[in-house]
Amino acid sequence: MNEDSFFPLFSEFQITYRYKVYFTKDIFQKDNPVLKNFFISEIKQGLVKKVMVVFDERLIHYHPNLVSEIKNYFQGLESFIQLTGDIIPIPGGEECKNNQNLWESLVNAVNTHGVDRHSYILAIGGGAVLDLVGYVAAVSHRGIRLVRIPTTVLSQNDSGVGVKNSINFQGKKNFLGTFAPPVAVFNDLQFLESLDDRDWRSGMAEAIKVALIKDKDFFHWIESNASELLNRNLDTMAYLIHRCAKLHMDHIASGDPFEFGSSRPLDFGHWSAHKLEYLTQFSLRHGEAVAIGIALDTVYSYQKQFLSQDDCLRILSLLKTLGFVVYHPMLSDGEKQNLFLGLEEFREHLGGRLTIVLLAEIGKSLEVHEMDFKTIDTSVNFLKTYL
Amino acid sequence: MNEDSFFPLFSEFQITYRYKVYFTKDIFQKDNPVLKNFFISEIKQGLVKKVMVVFDERLIHYHPNLVSEIKNYFQGLESFIQLTGDIIPIPGGEECKNNQNLWESLVNAVNTHGVDRHSYILAIGGGAVLDLVGYVAAVSHRGIRLVRIPTTVLSQNDSGVGVKNSINFQGKKNFLGTFAPPVAVFNDLQFLESLDDRDWRSGMAEAIKVALIKDKDFFHWIESNASELLNRNLDTMAYLIHRCAKLHMDHIASGDPFEFGSSRPLDFGHWSAHKLEYLTQFSLRHGEAVAIGIALDTVYSYQKQFLSQDDCLRILSLLKTLGFVVYHPMLSDGEKQNLFLGLEEFREHLGGRLTIVLLAEIGKSLEVHEMDFKTIDTSVNFLKTYL
Ligand SMILES: NC(=O)c1ccc[n+]([C@@H]2O[C@H](COP(=O)([O-])OP(=O)(O)OC[C@H]3O[C@@H](n4cnc5c(N)ncnc54)[C@H](O)[C@@H]3O)[C@@H](O)[C@H]2O)c1
Ligand SMILES: NC(=O)c1ccc[n+]([C@@H]2O[C@H](COP(=O)([O-])OP(=O)(O)OC[C@H]3O[C@@H](n4cnc5c(N)ncnc54)[C@H](O)[C@@H]3O)[C@@H](O)[C@H]2O)c1
Ligand SMILES: [Zn+2]
Ligand SMILES: [Zn+2]
Repeated sequence: MNEDSFFPLFSEFQITYRYKVYFTKDIFQKDNPVLKNFFISEIKQGLVKKVMVVFDERLIHYHPNLVSEIKNYFQGLESFIQLTGDIIPIPGGEECKNNQNLWESLVNAVNTHGVDRHSYILAIGGGAVLDLVGYVAAVSHRGIRLVRIPTTVLSQNDSGVGVKNSINFQGKKNFLGTFAPPVAVFNDLQFLESLDDRDWRSGMAEAIKVALIKDKDFFHWIESNASELLNRNLDTMAYLIHRCAKLHMDHIASGDPFEFGSSRPLDFGHWSAHKLEYLTQFSLRHGEAVAIGIALDTVYSYQKQFLSQDDCLRILSLLKTLGFVVYHPMLSDGEKQNLFLGLEEFREHLGGRLTIVLLAEIGKSLEVHEMDFKTIDTSVNFLKTYL
Repeated sequence: MNEDSFFPLFSEFQITYRYKVYFTKDIFQKDNPVLKNFFISEIKQGLVKKVMVVFDERLIHYHPNLVSEIKNYFQGLESFIQLTGDIIPIPGGEECKNNQNLWESLVNAVNTHGVDRHSYILAIGGGAVLDLVGYVAAVSHRGIRLVRIPTTVLSQNDSGVGVKNSINFQGKKNFLGTFAPPVAVFNDLQFLESLDDRDWRSGMAEAIKVALIKDKDFFHWIESNASELLNRNLDTMAYLIHRCAKLHMDHIASGDPFEFGSSRPLDFGHWSAHKLEYLTQFSLRHGEAVAIGIALDTVYSYQKQFLSQDDCLRILSLLKTLGFVVYHPMLSDGEKQNLFLGLEEFREHLGGRLTIVLLAEIGKSLEVHEMDFKTIDTSVNFLKTYL
């Protein structure tokens, strides 16, 4: 018996990820070099790369020439980057993340077009499309290079600049997914013009969220600029998105990007939001649900005397000014079973010990490991009557 | 217009992975502390964790008490680790990686048992079972902690100690998968007793492979110990596995663990092996196909005058001594279309430029970026008549 054969072996290594988020307008106009320059910077050994383009078909209503503009844009770039046949339209919105067949048809497209690990998948659309296509890219050939072009406020300032992807499974939101950073993200302001008011507003909930837990000045800036934001001023929105994206990205890079721990500060307001999205069968937008979740956890923070009454009312007031509704009947339904289950599902998705982020003041968060249902109840009732 | 809103943002971060590979015997005997100690070392904040156990049902033929032994082992550990109901048997062998329903039923089990990101999935079986279960663990909740107990030579010395998982899709081997290191691996020598001769032998192909590209001394050791290996001496095999696992792990940790580049030195002999596995509908074991692939690329290396005739014959002779067959009729079939397609599929799975590993001498590899079909042809004919 050779004792050496029983010594344990140890493996340790680091993986480095890098990506840039660009901000632009009219990305597919022939004279806009930003996307082209990215592909030029990626040239290796003179190889021609492929790019498979998938987009949120809703965009066609507002940008009827989108497909021809994209084809046009890539014309003349064939010496280093080639479109793989047709540009692929898919339905946008949460529904696409529930659709197993859609996922499979995209994986099939990767296969039939011979998209390999040094090819690119370019996804254009809202957060739902980016999550789905990101998941396809992450698991095909163990990872194809993903480029994102987010087209909603929420995806430009939060979901599209981060490192996660997912689809829903058996009625559980984001049950399947991976951590897989993109190789680049291009935020094109122009797309936001066509958003309906709900989606324009909805994305701002994530900016308020991140301001509340990290950046008091940003919260004040949003307060001061509420009317421009409400009136759909594109430059004001550009600033909100840029600052919010930066706060999210800095948090991810400096913390625990792949969430090996069980705390997730960026999920302030999200435990009840996830449950509300389901209970309303996604008639609530993610951001609308998050606004309600922020309101709930804000009032709860105040009831528990972590947060001052002034701060609490100021937060509710900003949400209201921006047009958010801060209560939903489902919060009171089912004899509180809804929120009870919501909390358990949230814990389960993160795993380990329950960790909920609350507010100490505007710009400063704190963590608790249990929630008290009597106080949740009082908070829900408070919101119900808040006008 | 605020210019700041158009400054690109940059993200860069590192993720650190660590895991240990333990070597043991009779892991589920009550008095074997190695697995128990691992779970004890993982205790955090006194939380009770769950473990979902999935195993290769073939094992039951040889270890009829396996299930009760496992249940027994975990009894008394409930204060920190709990089995999630029944232990789940699944069919082993390549077939399980082709079975979409099996994959789905395991994801369902994760869901119904409330297995969360701080729970464990413990997979017991050959490389195929570990690849499938590893993929389930990697994409459920964006990653559940995976513990592997490999039960074949190949999975103990290669696949089970590495960082990859996968399933097959639409007839393409390993088309879906991720890079996802385990949290721990336990190589239990005892399991190897029940392997049939083909599986006992098959795994040795990976040891010869890694010896050929990295470790001349190890190649000599295998030569000197060929008859013990042939006669199924367990201690000799233990040493082979330990050294082979170490070579694989060191390579992964010091190189490009998640294969962002397009070179993959550990795939010596694999481009034709993958194709042969398919063409024979997996009647060839992975290791058997790799042995043929090694033989082909060895002869090719010699024909191209990279490798001496002595070394070439010595390699073929060792393969033969260990009972490997070094030729398969499919190599000559289809007017060479088979190998031609195999090469293209190999390039596509890795992506980018074709990179094939060949031999400069025993223990030393080199890379080429094209293969010459006339020489492949000559090499195939050489093997066909090699006795
Ligand atoms: N991956 C992450 O880190 C992360 C983080 C937060 C949210 N998310 C996910 O993001 C999704 C929500 O994303 P969303 O808020 O962007 O919603 P969405 O993707 O559902 O899009 C909302 C609607 O707007 C349409 N649309 C998209 N772009 C448009 C445009 N430019 N003009 C007009 N209509 C347009 C879509 O087709 C859809 O109907 C949810 O599935 C959520 O779970 C993911
Ligand atoms: N992930 C990786 O890095 C990697 C690397 C190399 C190979 N692989 C994969 O590994 C797979 C091959 O693995 P393998 O060679 O272990 O074969 P296998 O898993 O197909 O097992 C071979 C046979 O042995 C049976 N078996 C398993 N353990 C046994 C035991 N102790 N006693 C008796 N029978 C037992 C299995 O049920 C099966 O019938 C392939 O799918 C290959 O693609 C993966
Ligand atoms: Zn959110
Ligand atoms: Zn192999």
